[in-house]
Amino acid sequence: MTEPTAPVASEPQPASGVSRRGLLGVSAGAAVAGVAVGFGGGYATRAAAAPADEASPATAPASLDAPIPFRGAHQAGIVTPAQDRMHFVALDVVTKDRAQLVDLLKKWTRAAERMTVGAEAAPGGVVGGGPYGVPQDTGEAFGLPASGLTVTIGFGPSLFDDRFGLAARRPTALQALPAFRGDDLDPTRSGGDLCIQACANDPQVAVHAVRNVVRLGFGVVSVRWSQLGFGRTSSTSTTQATPRNLFGFKDGTNNLKAEEPAEIDDHVWVSTADVPGAAAWMAGGTYLVARRIRMHIEVWDRTNLQDQQDTIGRTKAAGAPLGKEKEFDEPDFALKGADNEPAIPVDAHVRLAHSSNLNGIKILRRGYNFTDGTDGVGHLDAGLFFIAFVRDPGKQFVPMQQALAAKDVLNEYIEHNGSALFACPPGVAEGGYWGDALFA
Amino acid sequence: MTEPTAPVASEPQPASGVSRRGLLGVSAGAAVAGVAVGFGGGYATRAAAAPADEASPATAPASLDAPIPFRGAHQAGIVTPAQDRMHFVALDVVTKDRAQLVDLLKKWTRAAERMTVGAEAAPGGVVGGGPYGVPQDTGEAFGLPASGLTVTIGFGPSLFDDRFGLAARRPTALQALPAFRGDDLDPTRSGGDLCIQACANDPQVAVHAVRNVVRLGFGVVSVRWSQLGFGRTSSTSTTQATPRNLFGFKDGTNNLKAEEPAEIDDHVWVSTADVPGAAAWMAGGTYLVARRIRMHIEVWDRTNLQDQQDTIGRTKAAGAPLGKEKEFDEPDFALKGADNEPAIPVDAHVRLAHSSNLNGIKILRRGYNFTDGTDGVGHLDAGLFFIAFVRDPGKQFVPMQQALAAKDVLNEYIEHNGSALFACPPGVAEGGYWGDALFA
Repeated sequence: MTEPTAPVASEPQPASGVSRRGLLGVSAGAAVAGVAVGFGGGYATRAAAAPADEASPATAPASLDAPIPFRGAHQAGIVTPAQDRMHFVALDVVTKDRAQLVDLLKKWTRAAERMTVGAEAAPGGVVGGGPYGVPQDTGEAFGLPASGLTVTIGFGPSLFDDRFGLAARRPTALQALPAFRGDDLDPTRSGGDLCIQACANDPQVAVHAVRNVVRLGFGVVSVRWSQLGFGRTSSTSTTQATPRNLFGFKDGTNNLKAEEPAEIDDHVWVSTADVPGAAAWMAGGTYLVARRIRMHIEVWDRTNLQDQQDTIGRTKAAGAPLGKEKEFDEPDFALKGADNEPAIPVDAHVRLAHSSNLNGIKILRRGYNFTDGTDGVGHLDAGLFFIAFVRDPGKQFVPMQQALAAKDVLNEYIEHNGSALFACPPGVAEGGYWGDALFA
Repeated sequence: MTEPTAPVASEPQPASGVSRRGLLGVSAGAAVAGVAVGFGGGYATRAAAAPADEASPATAPASLDAPIPFRGAHQAGIVTPAQDRMHFVALDVVTKDRAQLVDLLKKWTRAAERMTVGAEAAPGGVVGGGPYGVPQDTGEAFGLPASGLTVTIGFGPSLFDDRFGLAARRPTALQALPAFRGDDLDPTRSGGDLCIQACANDPQVAVHAVRNVVRLGFGVVSVRWSQLGFGRTSSTSTTQATPRNLFGFKDGTNNLKAEEPAEIDDHVWVSTADVPGAAAWMAGGTYLVARRIRMHIEVWDRTNLQDQQDTIGRTKAAGAPLGKEKEFDEPDFALKGADNEPAIPVDAHVRLAHSSNLNGIKILRRGYNFTDGTDGVGHLDAGLFFIAFVRDPGKQFVPMQQALAAKDVLNEYIEHNGSALFACPPGVAEGGYWGDALFA
């Protein structure tokens, strides 16, 4: 890596509707491996990245360093095999100028696509336009590979007020979530006009993506809240081992998986039939539900093994449904133990959350473990940042959470203190930008 | 991994002074690879770990998964090549009973040693003593390898008051840090009777270590503050590439390195001559200075490249001292540019922090980048959790920070809002426990 010895002219910005890949004169496949040539003479690129499988963002990349394709029918970062680390930010729009917002969405799209191949957020990179230019990338990921970065956008219900003329285009399914029993929501950890979810296998790459998105938005958006997730607590692919949450249990064994496309179509992607008329822009999209779930780990840690296992409905070490032996054995809710009581108690988490007890409801979970300092009264502030992608929150997340909030014995140990809902538009086509169909 | 089919008797606790390795009947070398046999029949171990080089905690392990030796002349986690992730906790002692504190230090020592080889924190592991036993490990790292975990303890100045009879044993060098110009310290992010630094290549393993340490301390200690570091921002070994901080600059190029043992002896380890009399327990130890440095990244990101480079004194892309070409070129503070001004400005960070301008002062930096949600007014709360290990804070960190606080132009972009100092005792000998010489 060397520095340029002379000021470097910025790459011109692509006009709306012009493919950045076309602009760069490289094919989609070459854009990944050949980025060092494409972006301004080589100085503005990060480390060389291995070629990715271009087939789909749902395909596991060849290595943890490799890039995930940005464009496609659906946004990446949803059925993409869950990366190890996450930085999530919710933003409020501070302008009332629709054109500024659209301009930002275009800039963000370009930045996200660049960063996912391991390039700097904008042309000019970390060394700017010569010594008196302001660097166009903050630089902390310079030299790091693509690291499987995905950047995913969502639009909150509050975006569809009268500021930007979007009220008529709000999908019926995008309603603020109802209050749930036991909620203790902090408004400073809830809501938001927009969200950006950045996931990567290197946290520096995920943080870099959010930070540059925020930077590009100065004067147009401001940070409402953000959350770092240090470790994934869901698998979204059969190629991944099930991780453990901070209760020490395997989490998401029964999660929807990328390898079940029919299930994903049924439960995750919005179909054209779901969004007639002015909300048709959401076809191919999905809804993101975020819940910051503080775990009272101190109380949990004082309970005995049987209580813990009865609460979850699975064994702690293996993750098997109670009464079964292996993690992926099907739970048998009719099975009784030696005491003639149900092997999986009636108020166990897996029983209440299981699709067979929720009229077939399934969700795609993609959450992360977090720890954020202390709670101020002598404990670690730790828990699970729950993210789920669903086709219709009112028909999936809401009834599921109502059932859990009413009966789940796990509630003794957790507290929902942040909540947000976002509509994630479909993937970006060549030449398009995030939300283009909404603003068209 | 299978679950035990019958309740498992707990391993007896080693009596004070008995080597745990001796107790387990395995040699030090075998303890690492053979841990599955050693700890209670195999159920309580995590994933198999590769054998470590037992020579020294300063030796880079064979892989990111491998264990780092716990015992030795010095504590691990200091000159150990900096792992990728960190969880740090400062604790206050809430008992006045010295025996309870000593008992906890023994339990912590055992837990730390167990966790560093990839075992659960205490015998009984995640499945406890049968169904009605409380799990002796919280379980979220069950199945994960050792991941290079190191667990390092420090004692704060406040521990040496009249509660535990330690006042006379306080080393002269362990004085609360003076106020520095520009400090904006938050008492809820500062100080502490004790600290535990857990570093690992998997954040789940580092968080697990801190969480189990906190758990073992219920009723004896409470959490004062904690900090997650998502990525290392220093190299402590010539085998490591220099990482970048959140200003996008390579950080710690000139850091002390494990491969320079004479320098480490001169600048990091406390010698017997430093601590005569009642403070002799600190020989072989070191002092840990922690500073939470919020970075005003928004302001920084608006400055041009030359301003940024002049502030740091290095080029952004390559990390070369200004006027030179390569990262590891020696800075030339006499060199002048075409304008006849110093190539490295008189108020540049590297000039002020360089040993040649500080009467030879050097420190071992081992900090981490952090991001902790938002600041409440629209920005990310991000920065650098500075950790330095020094032989004498009053002769090294204090004059260095006084020089920086007075003149460093970087102060325009940063704010120290947390601060703490701890005395890290020497390494634990076979049969010993953390701080045994202090409490003897």
